[in-house]
Amino acid sequence: MSEERLIYLPLGGAGEIGMNCYVYGYGRPGAERLIVVDMGVTFPDMDTTPGVDLIFPDIAWLEERKDRVDGIFITHAHEDHVGAVGHLFGKLDCAVYARSFTAHHARRKMDEHGHNPDKVQTRGAWPETITVGPFTVGFLPVSHSIPESSALVIDTAAGRVIHTGDFKIDYQPGVGEAFDRDLWASVARDGVKALVCDSTNVFSHHEGRSESSVGPEIRRFVSEQDGMVVATTFASNVSRVRTLAQAGVDAGRSVCLLGRAMRRMIEASVETGVLTDFPSTITPEEARDLPRDNVMLIVTGSQGERRAASAQLSRGKYLGLELKDGDTFLFSSKTIPGNEREVIRIMNALSEKGVDVADDDNGRYHVSGHANRPDLIAMQDLVNPQIVVPMHGEHRHLREHAKLAESRGRLGVLAPNGTCISLSGNKPEVVEYVETGRTYLDGSVQIGAMDGVVRDRIRLALNGAVIVTLIIDEDDTPLGDPWVELMGLPETGRSGDLVETMEADLAQFMQRADDRTLRDDDKLDEALRRIARQTAVNEIGRKPEVRVVVSRLS
Amino acid sequence: MSEERLIYLPLGGAGEIGMNCYVYGYGRPGAERLIVVDMGVTFPDMDTTPGVDLIFPDIAWLEERKDRVDGIFITHAHEDHVGAVGHLFGKLDCAVYARSFTAHHARRKMDEHGHNPDKVQTRGAWPETITVGPFTVGFLPVSHSIPESSALVIDTAAGRVIHTGDFKIDYQPGVGEAFDRDLWASVARDGVKALVCDSTNVFSHHEGRSESSVGPEIRRFVSEQDGMVVATTFASNVSRVRTLAQAGVDAGRSVCLLGRAMRRMIEASVETGVLTDFPSTITPEEARDLPRDNVMLIVTGSQGERRAASAQLSRGKYLGLELKDGDTFLFSSKTIPGNEREVIRIMNALSEKGVDVADDDNGRYHVSGHANRPDLIAMQDLVNPQIVVPMHGEHRHLREHAKLAESRGRLGVLAPNGTCISLSGNKPEVVEYVETGRTYLDGSVQIGAMDGVVRDRIRLALNGAVIVTLIIDEDDTPLGDPWVELMGLPETGRSGDLVETMEADLAQFMQRADDRTLRDDDKLDEALRRIARQTAVNEIGRKPEVRVVVSRLS
Repeated sequence: MSEERLIYLPLGGAGEIGMNCYVYGYGRPGAERLIVVDMGVTFPDMDTTPGVDLIFPDIAWLEERKDRVDGIFITHAHEDHVGAVGHLFGKLDCAVYARSFTAHHARRKMDEHGHNPDKVQTRGAWPETITVGPFTVGFLPVSHSIPESSALVIDTAAGRVIHTGDFKIDYQPGVGEAFDRDLWASVARDGVKALVCDSTNVFSHHEGRSESSVGPEIRRFVSEQDGMVVATTFASNVSRVRTLAQAGVDAGRSVCLLGRAMRRMIEASVETGVLTDFPSTITPEEARDLPRDNVMLIVTGSQGERRAASAQLSRGKYLGLELKDGDTFLFSSKTIPGNEREVIRIMNALSEKGVDVADDDNGRYHVSGHANRPDLIAMQDLVNPQIVVPMHGEHRHLREHAKLAESRGRLGVLAPNGTCISLSGNKPEVVEYVETGRTYLDGSVQIGAMDGVVRDRIRLALNGAVIVTLIIDEDDTPLGDPWVELMGLPETGRSGDLVETMEADLAQFMQRADDRTLRDDDKLDEALRRIARQTAVNEIGRKPEVRVVVSRLS
Repeated sequence: MSEERLIYLPLGGAGEIGMNCYVYGYGRPGAERLIVVDMGVTFPDMDTTPGVDLIFPDIAWLEERKDRVDGIFITHAHEDHVGAVGHLFGKLDCAVYARSFTAHHARRKMDEHGHNPDKVQTRGAWPETITVGPFTVGFLPVSHSIPESSALVIDTAAGRVIHTGDFKIDYQPGVGEAFDRDLWASVARDGVKALVCDSTNVFSHHEGRSESSVGPEIRRFVSEQDGMVVATTFASNVSRVRTLAQAGVDAGRSVCLLGRAMRRMIEASVETGVLTDFPSTITPEEARDLPRDNVMLIVTGSQGERRAASAQLSRGKYLGLELKDGDTFLFSSKTIPGNEREVIRIMNALSEKGVDVADDDNGRYHVSGHANRPDLIAMQDLVNPQIVVPMHGEHRHLREHAKLAESRGRLGVLAPNGTCISLSGNKPEVVEYVETGRTYLDGSVQIGAMDGVVRDRIRLALNGAVIVTLIIDEDDTPLGDPWVELMGLPETGRSGDLVETMEADLAQFMQRADDRTLRDDDKLDEALRRIARQTAVNEIGRKPEVRVVVSRLS
């Protein structure tokens, strides 16, 4: 019988920034008890996932082993860490552990999906620990861009693993716990087997800046404005939201929060005690009745989301509020790669209204929540692990981070999604490649990324569609000629009306079709499709998707 | 009879970066003689223009006045200035003027679209001028990121206009003409009515850097690499391509150009005499046979274009060449906003091959071709125009640039696409708002942006489609039940097979449908569509596009 081992398997987050889901296992090979760290989502885009509502990791591997899963641990309340809990809980049905603020969000998600919110258990910070199966796990506070972020200290008979979650090293984060170097040093003192570490900012070469560094700049900026001031940031960055609100108050403005996520985050922070000194706010109705230069709006939608408050305000009235010439809009945020077009669209719409727009201006009004390269080095030096396993990054981040560890004389392991590694021996080794993937929430249905449904929609968008219908009677004789309908195609081609041309070409074929073809749906389908495509190529220079519907009377 | 006037009308480029097309007119109102400056394209994206091949300005306004158009002047050979000449020439059919290198490209485009290349006339630089109608126009050399860029000096009885085209102030551009301050000062000496000016980098607050500043960094970088070195940049930046090639040669490498645009640009530069000292190159076959560390590839696709050499090399073999562990890939380029996802995809694919990727690293290996804010101020001070008309920018750029001019005590005019302004009087004034728009090249067909064709394709991508077919006989009696086909939709819904559920719901309706409904195609269509959508909402939580095809036997 083989020896027990400690394994690590990323199902999401090691190949993208977002959609975090990591598995740790301990036990005899193939019989390890398992825990899950984070269950996050990532967001669809028009290029690759049109019409998709949300994306989460495919957890089929876990589902097949659900009797071995002893718990789900959530490091913090960002959507890419907690967002899939409601959607995926039913597949595992085990206890979910988190600290108070994070648990608050997880419970709401459980509730929204008809699961029992009490399955989420609130636990305190380190040195409190939870023992499940062969694991003893503690939530080690760490600074990030949302309150109560935690690393996990994961102890097994094979040694201690520290899973950083998302983090930065910030001694003055404003709201939430400061990075506690001494506490971390004490946790690392007796030796750490592996540091599984956030890789987001491995390409940022300067030392990271504290959240508190943007306060004075934001205060100065707000104090200098006339007209209404609107600021947007990530709603979950409660410290930033408080800084913005306080800047408004300091400038003699009443503060109004717009957008569900914004209000929800502040409420959750107050309710769970992580925020005690947020200025009082006014409603949109009250804001409407105040002089413009006495109002500051703090709004959702820093990434250009179409339905969020920023986009709505850029397009016109929102809850009775309307921006105009002389107002100012501050993006206290960074545009996540891929969202540029949407953010720029809002900036231009605001410009058309005469609103002055300020963006983060090279970090003046925004700092990242992730550790930069020098901070990653500092973390490695502080924890002094035997192995560094980069996570939370695209392939290029993971690879660079592993190289960084190697360059500092440590073992760096490149383990993208699906790479199951054993951390037990002196050197980590790949024990298995697990099939991983993505699950799409498509309307109310969960579908696999490889099912072809979304691929078909992309083809429709790129190529347009032709529908050919044909009726054949009981004697295999066509009743009339094929009909053509177009979807997403120009009506006029080289020779004139495209439908007419295509129907003529199809009719010509039908007149010559022999009995064997007329009896065979597949043959007919193939021939009609080929002709329709060829006509389209000749007439409009593109190959549409063609759907042939042959109706046989009987 | 009203007095003659000088008008300016942007049809493209004043509301986007790209798709440049500006009109100048001189004469009695409504009878002005017209010239066109630039005829550029912009590029489609999946979000707003899936399946579209190319986008150019809608020049219907010009077409309706084609007898008054005296010439088309092209400032330089970037696609967003010359790219639509071949596509749109037929609508105007007048002389096209450009300098040698630009004319070379324009002629090829004319030829590709079946127009007479001789319609493109090569003209020399200022002080040479061309007189067409009431205009006297000269090509005033200016530095940019492509050889032979020119501003236009446009003289009429109403005074002198300087249309900068794209430019930067670069005294050491490498290939191409250096900015000649004295020449510009002499052109401006007798007074300039209006400076119509590039706005691209108005938000860049530091002084612009010379193209020559990246040479030493690139040389150092290339000299430090082992393995094969691949560099990508904009093919049209001939100076950069030469710098990269020379860096390769200096490091003992043979240089191979990959990608049609790359080879074409260098050939055109040599042919027209703007480039005299390009290192000799080798073929891909020769590159294959050399040791990796003796090879440098310079390739197209810096913006992540799927079919360009960069993307192909990231995916696998390209022309027999394959990258591997230990090779290096340099992006000597900036990612244009909106292209981030594609570029990042390539970077990660390269990372998976073990290739080290270097990007522009905050400008170490790339500089912009456009004037930054301090350079825009320097240009205004040098030309000292009465009016500044910002062009080549999104709305936010134009607005900021106009404000910049005003802050310096000049008249700044915000004139987005379609704003026809008179420059004749003491103050510019809007004389008309012209309907403008975009024309899509869709396969081989030109369609209007507002035609709805592309909107339909977007809906197909977001919603998927259901096709319902129904046969009704001569007596208005349905022959069987409606059939359902799905496109881009999941097959299984809440109650099981989606097609079956939907067909059952539709059949149920048909059984109850009265004669009036059965006789009325519109009623049937509406009812069947409504039921299909409702079933989809219930079953899969989304509202698909529904196409109902009713076939009536007669």
